Amino acid sequence: MQDLSPSGVVKPEVRGLTAYTLKHFEADVKLDQNENPHELPADLKRAVVERVLSRPWGRYPEFVPTAVIKTLAKFTGWKEEGILVGNGSNELIQAVLSVTLGPGRRIAVPQPTFTLYKLMATTLQSEVVEVFLNPENMTFDLDGLIQAARTSDVLVICNPNNPTGTLMQTDAVVTLLKNARGLVLLDEAYHEFSEQSARPLLEKHRNLVVLRTFSKAMAMAGLRFGYMMADPDIAREVYKAKLPYNVNIFTLAAAEIVVERRAVLSEAITSLIRERDRVTGELQKRPAVKVFPSKTNFVLIKAGKPARELFDALYAQGVLVRDVSAYPLLDRCLRVSIGLLEENDRFLKALDRALEKK
Amino acid sequence: MQDLSPSGVVKPEVRGLTAYTLKHFEADVKLDQNENPHELPADLKRAVVERVLSRPWGRYPEFVPTAVIKTLAKFTGWKEEGILVGNGSNELIQAVLSVTLGPGRRIAVPQPTFTLYKLMATTLQSEVVEVFLNPENMTFDLDGLIQAARTSDVLVICNPNNPTGTLMQTDAVVTLLKNARGLVLLDEAYHEFSEQSARPLLEKHRNLVVLRTFSKAMAMAGLRFGYMMADPDIAREVYKAKLPYNVNIFTLAAAEIVVERRAVLSEAITSLIRERDRVTGELQKRPAVKVFPSKTNFVLIKAGKPARELFDALYAQGVLVRDVSAYPLLDRCLRVSIGLLEENDRFLKALDRALEKK
Repeated sequence: MQDLSPSGVVKPEVRGLTAYTLKHFEADVKLDQNENPHELPADLKRAVVERVLSRPWGRYPEFVPTAVIKTLAKFTGWKEEGILVGNGSNELIQAVLSVTLGPGRRIAVPQPTFTLYKLMATTLQSEVVEVFLNPENMTFDLDGLIQAARTSDVLVICNPNNPTGTLMQTDAVVTLLKNARGLVLLDEAYHEFSEQSARPLLEKHRNLVVLRTFSKAMAMAGLRFGYMMADPDIAREVYKAKLPYNVNIFTLAAAEIVVERRAVLSEAITSLIRERDRVTGELQKRPAVKVFPSKTNFVLIKAGKPARELFDALYAQGVLVRDVSAYPLLDRCLRVSIGLLEENDRFLKALDRALEKK
Repeated sequence: MQDLSPSGVVKPEVRGLTAYTLKHFEADVKLDQNENPHELPADLKRAVVERVLSRPWGRYPEFVPTAVIKTLAKFTGWKEEGILVGNGSNELIQAVLSVTLGPGRRIAVPQPTFTLYKLMATTLQSEVVEVFLNPENMTFDLDGLIQAARTSDVLVICNPNNPTGTLMQTDAVVTLLKNARGLVLLDEAYHEFSEQSARPLLEKHRNLVVLRTFSKAMAMAGLRFGYMMADPDIAREVYKAKLPYNVNIFTLAAAEIVVERRAVLSEAITSLIRERDRVTGELQKRPAVKVFPSKTNFVLIKAGKPARELFDALYAQGVLVRDVSAYPLLDRCLRVSIGLLEENDRFLKALDRALEKK
């Protein structure tokens, strides 16, 4: 029977989806979104604002934001014609999938991973092949991924992976690139914390697409900026699905200035890596939880009690983490972002108290 | 034969597309993008910047930007649950089309109109039914649109229309809403200059989707902001294809403050309407050009000589307009944005000189 409600015209694949959303919680210690807790220096923020005030707000940004692309090309060593910028890297994921996926086309994704890949592919009515991580240690199933890549239009890997923190080594990435029938989309949202990148592989592997974001290590989640590096031939096609004027004058100014002065972020990144390793070590001392090795700015933990219970017990003590127990394989798991030293200590203390409770 | 180039995996529909782009020209008098030449007041810009400086840049924007949605609900009288905000209205057009279109689905668009609708629908592998305007006066072909709307999933009308300036009267919009099998997407990018809106029709017509932008009358093209009003049932589905955190903290602050102080824009809008009517009157005195009646902040003109020649002759005199002669039906046509009084005078003078040349 025809659906006569106003949304009856919406595609059934979309109607069947649950929207990607996040309930808003206020908290003293916010460890739920993998943000960088080290705020950009006040003088840098002031420089961005002054540049924006000197520009007319009523005029569109440039069609191609040449200055920031040149800055990124210099920073990464990749060619300008192969770089696209986006309103966060999410927009570029969407653009890549829009030009490659549709009914009868196929994407391979590890599971569990970042939710948006599957959501976007489903909206595009594409088939999604899920390759589960090894449940014991959350490492990638390389053989399974090779098989899937051989018959898929796109293989997407979040490397290191969210929400597990797992890193795929470069030689495994190369194996996938050699076996893939289509594109390999490597989402490097957390690469600064892994000290590894697929960037050098771009020269030899023309089916590689690398995505980066300024929302994590670069401390600009509120500003929305990401970029893509790929063969210029691919970039030209993805460009067609990217919105015109997608990055505003404020974010363009901020991205340019932050890349120029990126040394200001090095200390924050080093300290987050050190804190991640310290928190991991601390957690390993606690038999009541299992912690997975992480190359990101968060850790995945698994506890004996239901995730919701532990989440609530932490939140009652002012510590907000992410309940990821609804992801495949992640029953009883929580994801905890690495914060400042004192925030991490508060988390550990809150966790001990929560685990003590019967 | 299989295409082995890296972009061989891109959908053929996309590979066949020409990207939406715009060559960059510098000019004294910039009348090519329908921007508002009246810059927002300095104290308003300062208030936006101060609010942004008081916020952490490393933290994501709220998942649902409640404050700006409440402000828009108050401003428009429409319900909060039926409002979505976007990184420009383009993002919301894309989201609406993503949830409704795909292979085997159909969109109806008047021609000529804003390029992106057809481009996005083609990327989604959807069928595009084009209903041509009446070539004599560029008015909408209502009968043709009714026929197309009866068999389409979406009918999109830019009202008033870009690049022709044509307004569809409210009774015609109602006729389309009553006949449409699917959604009627009304892009009101220029509605402030037409003194007409379909907003009051939302109460009775649950298949209506109204889009608004802050890039034209609201003088915020550089900041990227738009919003959608629809039945909450539709908004809920479109939300699934909208990117999370799509509007950054800067634009959210600016949109909120601009709507609160929108009186500062009234004078600019009144003056642009007055100037549009004056420029139209001046052009009507010139037998060498035809000017089409406009309810926007631009006018469409048709000349005896090739559009490129006239464009070049104007540009040589420091006046940048838009050559729209590649659009269907618009051979020998240019689109000229309304600027400040002295800019419009410079355009008229440059036009006279250009037309004199043999």
